[in-house]
Amino acid sequence: MTSHEMETTWNALTLHWQQLADLGGIGSLLGWDQSTFLPVGAAGGRARQQALLAGITHARATDAAYGRLLDDAQRHTDWSPVQARTLALARRQFEESTRLPGAFVQDFTQHVGESYSAWVGARPANDFARMVPYLERTLELSLQAASYFPEFASPMDYFIDQSDEGMTAEVVDRVFAELREALVPLVEAVAQVPEPRTDFLHRSYPTDVQLQLGGEIAVAFGYDLTRGRQDLTAHPFMTRLGGQDVRITTRVKERDLTEALYSTLHETGHALYEQGVAPELLGTPLGGGVSAGVHESQSRLWENLVGRSRAFWTAYFPTFRDAFPEQLADVTEDEMYRAVNVAQRSLIRTDADELTYNLHVITRYELERELLSGRLAVRDLAQAWHAAYETNLGLRAPSDVDGVLQDVHWFGGGIGGAFQGYTLGNVLSAQFYAAAQRALPGLDAQIARAEFTGLHGWLREQVYAPGSTLTPAALVERVTGEPLTVAPYVAYLRGKFGELYGLS
Amino acid sequence: MTSHEMETTWNALTLHWQQLADLGGIGSLLGWDQSTFLPVGAAGGRARQQALLAGITHARATDAAYGRLLDDAQRHTDWSPVQARTLALARRQFEESTRLPGAFVQDFTQHVGESYSAWVGARPANDFARMVPYLERTLELSLQAASYFPEFASPMDYFIDQSDEGMTAEVVDRVFAELREALVPLVEAVAQVPEPRTDFLHRSYPTDVQLQLGGEIAVAFGYDLTRGRQDLTAHPFMTRLGGQDVRITTRVKERDLTEALYSTLHETGHALYEQGVAPELLGTPLGGGVSAGVHESQSRLWENLVGRSRAFWTAYFPTFRDAFPEQLADVTEDEMYRAVNVAQRSLIRTDADELTYNLHVITRYELERELLSGRLAVRDLAQAWHAAYETNLGLRAPSDVDGVLQDVHWFGGGIGGAFQGYTLGNVLSAQFYAAAQRALPGLDAQIARAEFTGLHGWLREQVYAPGSTLTPAALVERVTGEPLTVAPYVAYLRGKFGELYGLS
Repeated sequence: MTSHEMETTWNALTLHWQQLADLGGIGSLLGWDQSTFLPVGAAGGRARQQALLAGITHARATDAAYGRLLDDAQRHTDWSPVQARTLALARRQFEESTRLPGAFVQDFTQHVGESYSAWVGARPANDFARMVPYLERTLELSLQAASYFPEFASPMDYFIDQSDEGMTAEVVDRVFAELREALVPLVEAVAQVPEPRTDFLHRSYPTDVQLQLGGEIAVAFGYDLTRGRQDLTAHPFMTRLGGQDVRITTRVKERDLTEALYSTLHETGHALYEQGVAPELLGTPLGGGVSAGVHESQSRLWENLVGRSRAFWTAYFPTFRDAFPEQLADVTEDEMYRAVNVAQRSLIRTDADELTYNLHVITRYELERELLSGRLAVRDLAQAWHAAYETNLGLRAPSDVDGVLQDVHWFGGGIGGAFQGYTLGNVLSAQFYAAAQRALPGLDAQIARAEFTGLHGWLREQVYAPGSTLTPAALVERVTGEPLTVAPYVAYLRGKFGELYGLS
Repeated sequence: MTSHEMETTWNALTLHWQQLADLGGIGSLLGWDQSTFLPVGAAGGRARQQALLAGITHARATDAAYGRLLDDAQRHTDWSPVQARTLALARRQFEESTRLPGAFVQDFTQHVGESYSAWVGARPANDFARMVPYLERTLELSLQAASYFPEFASPMDYFIDQSDEGMTAEVVDRVFAELREALVPLVEAVAQVPEPRTDFLHRSYPTDVQLQLGGEIAVAFGYDLTRGRQDLTAHPFMTRLGGQDVRITTRVKERDLTEALYSTLHETGHALYEQGVAPELLGTPLGGGVSAGVHESQSRLWENLVGRSRAFWTAYFPTFRDAFPEQLADVTEDEMYRAVNVAQRSLIRTDADELTYNLHVITRYELERELLSGRLAVRDLAQAWHAAYETNLGLRAPSDVDGVLQDVHWFGGGIGGAFQGYTLGNVLSAQFYAAAQRALPGLDAQIARAEFTGLHGWLREQVYAPGSTLTPAALVERVTGEPLTVAPYVAYLRGKFGELYGLS
């Protein structure tokens, strides 16, 4: 290949990538509108539009001419490192789109839809037995999906790699084992201490004031409203609708002061990552967050490491007191800090606090791994769930409604890879934050003055701007000086909750 | 073709039409979001997404296999009347999409973009001379576009037919001549009478209350919010985003009580038409309003014939008094009715009232016709504009800013067919309303009680449900018993403004 041919190939690929990105953005708009503003009667028509666009996008993503361009490019070895990485990710996505036969994908999609409908009825009826045949088929199809990627050591490795490139079940196993070892006794110790007061969190807080405060803090963190916006949805999310269009959504409850605030800060963390990707990467395979774990690390960093810190409440408690003078008249800054950090063992993942949340995730991850390996049969899953909760959280749900039936993931999707990213993100959030503290002396004092430009600037340069230029592992190593490691996270939790709960 | 082959062909066509409709809906969503919620920094990316989708849609609309299906269908003559009409409209759209060469469309689009940019600078500078070369090229390209459709008697006929199928310049000329003959002396007579008070329209009206009132009236008219919604935009519009997704937008001004109200009622009229199309027609070439004129007739009927009537204010003045007790404390129902119907000659089309508006349209239509026929040179257009305004409205603009440079249409688009639909719609609004009055005894009394189900039900059955099943001319004739005729509109204006201004 001459350098002229290389340039021609590269330009054609660049054009194709931009089109794929734009189609992805259009699909995101269809989804965003569906969650925010779609009239209730339009749901059927929207689903048909989404299916049509998905078909068009899939056809472009698997286009034979595009495949030949990738093959052409691969015959050349003289690409720059960034170009080589771009081509590798493009190849990865092309294989993901092309290896699964169309008929298989259709079967899987249809089965998952039927399973979801059955779960909607079986869950309130506490009827796990009804779901067993559906889950058995889901497991079978999940294993078949993994079988198209024999280069992975196990199905679990394939699924983990899909969301966290390069991560393996072996590493996750080790990380989660270490984490459980540290968390279980810490959670146990916290459970022995009387809980702080949280009564005032559930007074009446006008929702518009809550939203305005959350939005102001998002902007203070660095969220750019000229390239984003915030709307209300039933379930909060962040979505990229275009290179310069990264939106967040929020849920607000009049009688829960933490709901809008922390869902806003969480999605803001995701959005800061996407908004921070270097402009020249946008519209290429490198133009977005690199993995589920790194993404979650940023939502958790801004939500928890910053937003649930004592320094944050030093900065913002006066603002909240001004906004809600009557509701917070009898509350101190210290009480607020303690209330938003209350930790208690519970049965429901989505209600869990920062400290206990990971035990919910680890439980699910381990059950998934057992199912995929064949060591656990679907019919035994409900009992295995109860046993795992007793081990990990010391609790037993009174029914499967608050047990295995609680999460939609397995009933409305595949089995494998759905959960571990949350906890990898928590682990990484502390690892990145520790690196930020080393690089930015006085960080805590800055936060206590509501100054976030230092932290945001450092993260943007170190983590956001590279997009997917580096693999997740290479990024973590470059930014923190070491591979993924549990120690900073455990130290953070022990320090914070030890102090909060007066543990020795 | 056997009946089995007919069925196969029809099913394939139906699938293709649904896809074209769904792509159109996605395009509408991109446009709606652009006008309502798009972050300012995302404009460039959105334009690229729109161009990409337009390309995909054009490729599907002009697909050779689709053309062969249409050819196959055309070889058969045994279609039902509705099928035959569907095929005729599909053919019409296919020809429209295929006859213009791609390179020509690209040239035209690029030229129009450059012309628009030049106009943005030339307008505030009052520099018509700068626009002359742009307009000359626009005229040339418009004539070339028309030349691909030699079956029309003249370029003007082609452009009129594009938005008002079957209408011709000859008919429009006659209609507009009749109308001007009636309007000019009526406007002149009104100008001699002192104007009613309008001071109270410009007091401070909280915008959220204005929006809520307008929304309530839209729903009372019959607008279905389970298949629609209302948002704010700089310029109000109605758009169909899907079969069951017809949205309106509104502009609100704190110090103009009529702005939000009448822009809402206008767009509601458009939306009632689209929401009323029979469900079985949705997703086919028949599944929408049949022409610009018939569409505008419905927006004007609900905005003016209903919303600016004495009966409407009998129904709603108490509601407005309750909503704005201080602002309307010294105002009577009669004063409100007179204030929203004030008529005065003016220079700017978009500020014109119900009575004088058509003279602005007629002026533009006649200038377009002269340009396209070659009887008027572009360099003489500004002077021709001033002369026409003196003849039609008795006014002369102090500059071209308030003259030929005021409207974007010619500078940001082609020349021909942009204006006549507005006035055809006004004429038809009165003709349809007169038919409704004959069919619905006591209609005025119903409106005075805020009862609109009779009128809405009749219009839905007569005008909306048929969608594009009938040609515009056939629809008008079936619903009103006669072809398009000016008499009901002139009678309406003479009656209303004669009474309002005490003309003998």
